Amino acid sequence: MASMDSVTQAFSALSIQPAASTSHKETSSPAEWKEALKTDSSAPGDFELIKTLVFKPKTAKNATPVPLLVIAREETETSSGALGKKLSLKELRLASEDLLQEFFNLDKNSLSPLALDENTFPRVVTVVDSSIATSSSLFALHAQSSSSTVFLSGKDIVSYLKHLEKEDVKVQEIDFEALKTEAAAPAPTQRAAAPEKKKKEDAKIEGAIEIAIGVKKEVDFPAWYTNVLIKADMLDYYSVSGCYILKPWSYSIWEHIQEWFNARIKEMGVENAYFPMFVSSKVLEREKDHIEGFSPEVAWVTRAGQSELEEPIAIRPTSETAMYPYYAKWIKSYRDLPLKLNQWNSVVRWEFKSPQPFLRTREFLWQEGHTAHLTKHEADREVLDILDLYRRVYEELLAVPVVTGIKSEKEKFAGGLYTTTIEGFIPTSGRGIQAATSHCLGQNFSRPEMFNIVVEDPNDPTGQGKTYVWQNSWGLSTRTIGVMVMVHGDNQGLVLPPRVASLQVAIVPCGITAKATDEERKRINDACLDLEKTLKKAGVRAKADLRDGYTPGYKFNDWEQKGVPLRLELGPKDLSNRQTVSVRRDNGAKSPLPLGEIETAVSKLLETIQSDMYTRAKDIYFSRLKAVTKWEDVVPTLDAKCVVVMPWCEVEKCEDDIKERSGRGAEQTDERAPSAGAKSLAIPFDQSRWPAIEHGVTKCPACGQDAKRWTMFGRSY
Amino acid sequence: MASMDSVTQAFSALSIQPAASTSHKETSSPAEWKEALKTDSSAPGDFELIKTLVFKPKTAKNATPVPLLVIAREETETSSGALGKKLSLKELRLASEDLLQEFFNLDKNSLSPLALDENTFPRVVTVVDSSIATSSSLFALHAQSSSSTVFLSGKDIVSYLKHLEKEDVKVQEIDFEALKTEAAAPAPTQRAAAPEKKKKEDAKIEGAIEIAIGVKKEVDFPAWYTNVLIKADMLDYYSVSGCYILKPWSYSIWEHIQEWFNARIKEMGVENAYFPMFVSSKVLEREKDHIEGFSPEVAWVTRAGQSELEEPIAIRPTSETAMYPYYAKWIKSYRDLPLKLNQWNSVVRWEFKSPQPFLRTREFLWQEGHTAHLTKHEADREVLDILDLYRRVYEELLAVPVVTGIKSEKEKFAGGLYTTTIEGFIPTSGRGIQAATSHCLGQNFSRPEMFNIVVEDPNDPTGQGKTYVWQNSWGLSTRTIGVMVMVHGDNQGLVLPPRVASLQVAIVPCGITAKATDEERKRINDACLDLEKTLKKAGVRAKADLRDGYTPGYKFNDWEQKGVPLRLELGPKDLSNRQTVSVRRDNGAKSPLPLGEIETAVSKLLETIQSDMYTRAKDIYFSRLKAVTKWEDVVPTLDAKCVVVMPWCEVEKCEDDIKERSGRGAEQTDERAPSAGAKSLAIPFDQSRWPAIEHGVTKCPACGQDAKRWTMFGRSY
Repeated sequence: MASMDSVTQAFSALSIQPAASTSHKETSSPAEWKEALKTDSSAPGDFELIKTLVFKPKTAKNATPVPLLVIAREETETSSGALGKKLSLKELRLASEDLLQEFFNLDKNSLSPLALDENTFPRVVTVVDSSIATSSSLFALHAQSSSSTVFLSGKDIVSYLKHLEKEDVKVQEIDFEALKTEAAAPAPTQRAAAPEKKKKEDAKIEGAIEIAIGVKKEVDFPAWYTNVLIKADMLDYYSVSGCYILKPWSYSIWEHIQEWFNARIKEMGVENAYFPMFVSSKVLEREKDHIEGFSPEVAWVTRAGQSELEEPIAIRPTSETAMYPYYAKWIKSYRDLPLKLNQWNSVVRWEFKSPQPFLRTREFLWQEGHTAHLTKHEADREVLDILDLYRRVYEELLAVPVVTGIKSEKEKFAGGLYTTTIEGFIPTSGRGIQAATSHCLGQNFSRPEMFNIVVEDPNDPTGQGKTYVWQNSWGLSTRTIGVMVMVHGDNQGLVLPPRVASLQVAIVPCGITAKATDEERKRINDACLDLEKTLKKAGVRAKADLRDGYTPGYKFNDWEQKGVPLRLELGPKDLSNRQTVSVRRDNGAKSPLPLGEIETAVSKLLETIQSDMYTRAKDIYFSRLKAVTKWEDVVPTLDAKCVVVMPWCEVEKCEDDIKERSGRGAEQTDERAPSAGAKSLAIPFDQSRWPAIEHGVTKCPACGQDAKRWTMFGRSY
Repeated sequence: MASMDSVTQAFSALSIQPAASTSHKETSSPAEWKEALKTDSSAPGDFELIKTLVFKPKTAKNATPVPLLVIAREETETSSGALGKKLSLKELRLASEDLLQEFFNLDKNSLSPLALDENTFPRVVTVVDSSIATSSSLFALHAQSSSSTVFLSGKDIVSYLKHLEKEDVKVQEIDFEALKTEAAAPAPTQRAAAPEKKKKEDAKIEGAIEIAIGVKKEVDFPAWYTNVLIKADMLDYYSVSGCYILKPWSYSIWEHIQEWFNARIKEMGVENAYFPMFVSSKVLEREKDHIEGFSPEVAWVTRAGQSELEEPIAIRPTSETAMYPYYAKWIKSYRDLPLKLNQWNSVVRWEFKSPQPFLRTREFLWQEGHTAHLTKHEADREVLDILDLYRRVYEELLAVPVVTGIKSEKEKFAGGLYTTTIEGFIPTSGRGIQAATSHCLGQNFSRPEMFNIVVEDPNDPTGQGKTYVWQNSWGLSTRTIGVMVMVHGDNQGLVLPPRVASLQVAIVPCGITAKATDEERKRINDACLDLEKTLKKAGVRAKADLRDGYTPGYKFNDWEQKGVPLRLELGPKDLSNRQTVSVRRDNGAKSPLPLGEIETAVSKLLETIQSDMYTRAKDIYFSRLKAVTKWEDVVPTLDAKCVVVMPWCEVEKCEDDIKERSGRGAEQTDERAPSAGAKSLAIPFDQSRWPAIEHGVTKCPACGQDAKRWTMFGRSY
């Protein structure tokens, strides 16, 4: 983006004198912006808003996109269909926040013509509403931030843009009125959806100011997802692509998971340790099968200060090969078994596919457990014990249902013996998501030609026998948070399950009118603080929101957007009735609660919310698991956003075929979208939900061979 | 190292047939090794041990050292002085474990002539005791591990070595008997110190097997330090130089520190977050002063998979420049202040000086707090609040005394306004150590030409004023653990302060003789388990050590070496007296404790140990703070392993002079040793310990100018 300094310099060179400029609170919709300016004494009495939209045309996967930046009057209809036709650009879509950050280092709400400068202007196609130049209105433009505004004449705006022109890059003026009559394609943009949304919200939340998520979950799920994350203060984009900042609102969820999981694995005798983030290339490449899966994504350090390193050093994509040479050193006797280590760290997988916050990022936080056992039996048991902890993290903490099962040979961890998994499901996209995995590595890494982790076998009657240790590895990452957001969030924003919410109860003072005395105000505020204190004492994470200068409606919306499970409203009338009004975030249900035994009531209500959220999500997931026994039902089932469960032959070739055949014809319009072909998600442990498979009778609907087990197939992340 | 497979192949090619080979428990001294072999039925009746020593000659700092590997009979006197003279190698010193790992991937106890192969042989100078070739003895050699041994004739050993010779690299045979008469320099090697040590320990711990630390703390402090870390199971060397594995025994200390510190900063309103480990070069280089300090040590990622990155990306050496662009974005109003974020992460500083575990490592764990405030007053106060928490981590958790103060201009954090510090002290080396720092960055990073973090000033009466935010950053690293080890450890190994010990009490069953019945054995073991349970229930981290096949003496030594604060011995006699015998790790004091109210007694005793450890360390530290007012006393005070406290002028040029003048003449014999010149450690906050400085009267002993404050100068890490 242009710094405001450089913009000011340009203005002075061009003799542009803004009619006014002002700062105000951050705004996240045109309505809010207008509102803020109307109450701002330094703003002119009459003005129009400028809207700045960025579209991304369909671009070949590896090509650099050239975004289209459209500058128009707020009221002008800017149909992307008509615009695309006019400019011969295919499939214009509103750009992701990702792309905005990449090009302009600004969020959607802060964007304006002033985001263009010497650097950015040549990289985009700029279109300006031709009616701006000739208008006598004053226009409001954001000054690199949604919380500051400058007022310019239309002529000045155009003159600013023109000064950026080079011989080969010009501003294009378009008459949108004319365009409208030329083509009549509807404009499926965010802005178009807003009015309807506004109405709905007004009906729902009394007195609420609109702090819109901007897009509906059902309409543009990827945009909804990133909007929720940004607006709920979970995350911010970062200057290194594919990396994100985890803000306290999301990191605290991770801390809850850590605390819960740590306590349980320590009970199992697992100890935490820390291995370096670096792996020498020699060590990394020791296990061929294993590393094949990772090598295209490994980040290499080749230089330190000004010195080239003699050998490049990898940043761990996972730590099997980094740790196991030491396991070989430390495990000298069966008495040293089991060895159970875990570490909480970050790993780096330099994906070239488009990143998605929490789900696919170049650096992510996780825990990785690595254990060694004397017997297969012991290793097998631990694999399942850990898987069950993972299930409980999802189901009990995040209120997200999962299905436990085993991965197919094709989908298992490279180099391991078998992989168990918990599979989640995102109803909105109809896609499965691998939620966490617990692998049995067998003796594949302990073999003599590998790491040679060997002990005398105490159970060998001859006393001469040696045995290679049995190993497991298991990991759970911050993907947990992304899945939780996708499953529970709604069009008001985030919905947090109480057990992981860093704030469980927001207490909002209400009913303080303009003519309330200071004393009345204090009485209500004090009652809110008392309530906070009472709840905190009972272990409830509560906070009285006594911020000055914000209406209760604004606060309601703010906490809803951030997903706080329960709101308690406290006004003068409530106080005299010795009650508070509770409003559940998950379903909007309101009910009065007596202040008398409020701790008990609130704790109970939070548990109810937690359990209702889980039950609701589970019902949806399970209703979308569709038993399919004929091939022709597979694609329609997937298209209906369901998971196919079919009696499967478990042959790898058949899995490849299924993926290929089920993906055929489906068009990949958004490069962020995961693949359209179905892959096997899991072979559920609990086969009893479906009719028993008769050996030699039940056939695989994909290839006609004998079916072995009911297997989940689906599109996935 | 040579793999045993390749050794076996060489043997077969050379027709070498070992007389025997065997596995046994890991051994860590010649005495223990001999003991293990004597009771081993597959070992021959008569044999001699082979000792393998590696020396490092003095090498120019950036040159690759060529170690000297000496193979001799255990009984042969191998004087490094005489040897150095003979071979014209300067200042031979026993190689560090680091170097052994680097060259042979083996620890000292596993080293043998068989560590030499095609790869390693040309990289070292090999010297062999000439009496080996002609001896008729069978020799015991470790087979790449201190827990396995092969027996070879002297001829076979020489023949193995000879087969590795190349035209330009030969084995040198030396007659050590003759050498001894040639020169008479004493041999200050580890081995030479062992017999005396053994005697001392035998006298101290009844029935103890020697598990020696190998070197005395006072004799070879660096070797003692690494030995303690390895033998106490705190750490292991790693295949990437300068990086170390933190094993559970040390990592759990870090977890204790985390838990304590986290609770306290959260009370202060600090929230945890996570920023990516990567920093773009553009961002990193934004603050010139700041980055100058780090740029020679920054590790750069330049490649991902097979693709060269367009721009190299740094791994954070610290996160100021990575975080502050977002602070500028997030802080829009004074209402967004204070912003207080902290993260627990690892940072990378690719030091080219020799690494030292915990004290100077290329990757280390720490927390970094970054806060922004409206006023200087608020920032100042937080700097001190945090510093006080750091002081308490050292003093209350680690029982390590520190002095709080402020850094000189020269020593402050680059780019900041001022740096406060807690300075520790290592009595054995007489060196100061920076234990943790809390910086006020002032407005240096928020200025418009920097990150431009600005808000409207709510206190400005005109309502027009802007103010740049005041920032702090503060960090505490795993260096804590190294300092704790150095301060408290002794010649038996680690000594852990109870509050951070992952195991506080080891319960050892005693007095079970060979003729004890199973029932008696069970009765004692059960009593130990009961005791464990009772203590655990009272919140004491206790464990009954019921390992089979180890004597009580072995267990005593094992837990002493690992630093467990308290041992409880429980034998049949104790049981009938309803008591247990407690033995303190810190001072060896034994006393019986009645089993009746054991939880209370043990908890109290642990607190006493904690407080005694602190008091002892504090008395030593404070006795070594020497007020100095004449320049001629400075170097003698430093040489007496003390810290100089002098009334100082606080002029940077003077500090440079002091360093230069106090370092002059002191020879740098060990490249791992920190610099010999003294630098300013801290200007203590509490100046009242020393006579009041009279303005214009008290002069700086270094330059004769007016003194400002008493300042600590010392050699340091």
